[in-house]
Amino acid sequence: MIKRLAIIGVGLMGGSLARALRRDGHVGEIVGCGRDRGNLERALALGVIDRASTEPSAAVAGADVVVIAATLGATGEILRKIAPALSPKAVVTDVGSTKRGVAEAARAALGPRLPWFVPGHPIAGAERSGVDASSPTLYAGHRVILTPLAETDSAALAAVRALWEATGAQVSEMDVDHHDRVLAATSHLPHMLAYALVDCLAGMSDSGEIFDYAAGGFRDFTRIASSSPEMWRDIALENRSALLAMCDRFELTFGELRRAIAAGDAAGLHAVFCRAKQARDEFLARQIAR
Amino acid sequence: MIKRLAIIGVGLMGGSLARALRRDGHVGEIVGCGRDRGNLERALALGVIDRASTEPSAAVAGADVVVIAATLGATGEILRKIAPALSPKAVVTDVGSTKRGVAEAARAALGPRLPWFVPGHPIAGAERSGVDASSPTLYAGHRVILTPLAETDSAALAAVRALWEATGAQVSEMDVDHHDRVLAATSHLPHMLAYALVDCLAGMSDSGEIFDYAAGGFRDFTRIASSSPEMWRDIALENRSALLAMCDRFELTFGELRRAIAAGDAAGLHAVFCRAKQARDEFLARQIAR
Repeated sequence: MIKRLAIIGVGLMGGSLARALRRDGHVGEIVGCGRDRGNLERALALGVIDRASTEPSAAVAGADVVVIAATLGATGEILRKIAPALSPKAVVTDVGSTKRGVAEAARAALGPRLPWFVPGHPIAGAERSGVDASSPTLYAGHRVILTPLAETDSAALAAVRALWEATGAQVSEMDVDHHDRVLAATSHLPHMLAYALVDCLAGMSDSGEIFDYAAGGFRDFTRIASSSPEMWRDIALENRSALLAMCDRFELTFGELRRAIAAGDAAGLHAVFCRAKQARDEFLARQIAR
Repeated sequence: MIKRLAIIGVGLMGGSLARALRRDGHVGEIVGCGRDRGNLERALALGVIDRASTEPSAAVAGADVVVIAATLGATGEILRKIAPALSPKAVVTDVGSTKRGVAEAARAALGPRLPWFVPGHPIAGAERSGVDASSPTLYAGHRVILTPLAETDSAALAAVRALWEATGAQVSEMDVDHHDRVLAATSHLPHMLAYALVDCLAGMSDSGEIFDYAAGGFRDFTRIASSSPEMWRDIALENRSALLAMCDRFELTFGELRRAIAAGDAAGLHAVFCRAKQARDEFLARQIAR
């Protein structure tokens, strides 16, 4: 039971966490913080939060647990603002999609409070946004990765694990760089490919007609290109080195496939497509089994 | 009303066409043809076809309309086999995803019968397969592109247009090369990217763990990589030149995006992601409006 929870950024992610914890009685009071007063009013009206503040340092005063669910780009500044206002032993976590930058920002901002900061990343929906899209079931059955630092206090880690498990999420731990490399492969690279494909087609002289003949496969393939440009700009820059390594790896694979097409290598193409189909079908089977 | 319809290849595509035409009373007798006797028995048992044959020349005898719904790679041989057995003025069409190769095969095989051949491409589901997956509604609201040749008879073209319109599809016409270029952009390139991405990740030493942390975005992005390797080998080879041109164009766009990431160009990345999101959102709005 968390007596007072402060959530900085009451959008899809923060709002959904608040709703899940409140639904099951895991939290006493929830203080919401954000820059947009209209959104905070909406969160109050929906009962997602009990109190609101536009000032992070005020919002975290007296909180047992602080969750930073703002944009990646704002996380460093929020950490600097809340550091002097945190209660002794207040546990702080975040929901950012990349972790190295957040860990560095925390190291710089929190000083002796660093052991009570647990970097986290819930892997859940991101195309929709805002507190109106939030849901108590957003995290149920989804993965949450925690990336504790060498300094992280084990009680703080256990508290953040319990917080996420209370939402129905499956919590794992890995180190910061490993997280960033895994997510570059499964999420950040695919987003770059989807954005680049749509931009490539949109730049063709007959793009209107081209999109007219695109069908369901294209719609699904490019769904992630409807994600927030601001969020993905921040992710691409924050996770630059792991993402660039994955871009290079992809370009090699794609270049080989291109050469097989150019060479009319039927057996080679068949082998690539079979390997990929098998890997994808196994991925689906694992997802269903989870 | 078609008195006798012959369908060569009674799988998802051929079976769905048969079901749609029969449901609305557009056809008298349907003769199904395929190499797999078990599948033909199943199609008979399901009432999708009335008669079955494993020999294309026997199946098309006396048919008013012949639809070749076999794999792309088999289409040339089927055209050669049926050419001498076609009734005078029998209209022939196909459902292949690329059209230049089919048009060339028809020109070589059909000789004086060429005007009654109308190349066609219904743009509809392809991950599932087999007559058991067929449905009378597969084509409803979907696009069908016809690519008449200079020699194509206008009555034959009208007959094939009417056949597809009877299924609820939206029929358009364009020339063969234009079709192949448009489909390379909207379908063939995305399939190559999805296959290459999954193959790239599957080849990493920790691919098992990587797939464990892939989520819904990855699942949707890679759905098309679960398509038939045989079908996509044939498409990639048949539409090689248009597809290679699109690969080159994509590699340029992706290379620019990669350079923007490497350079830390926040404004450039934001601009690319905004352009792509806007184009994709407009594509969705058009789809909904259709």
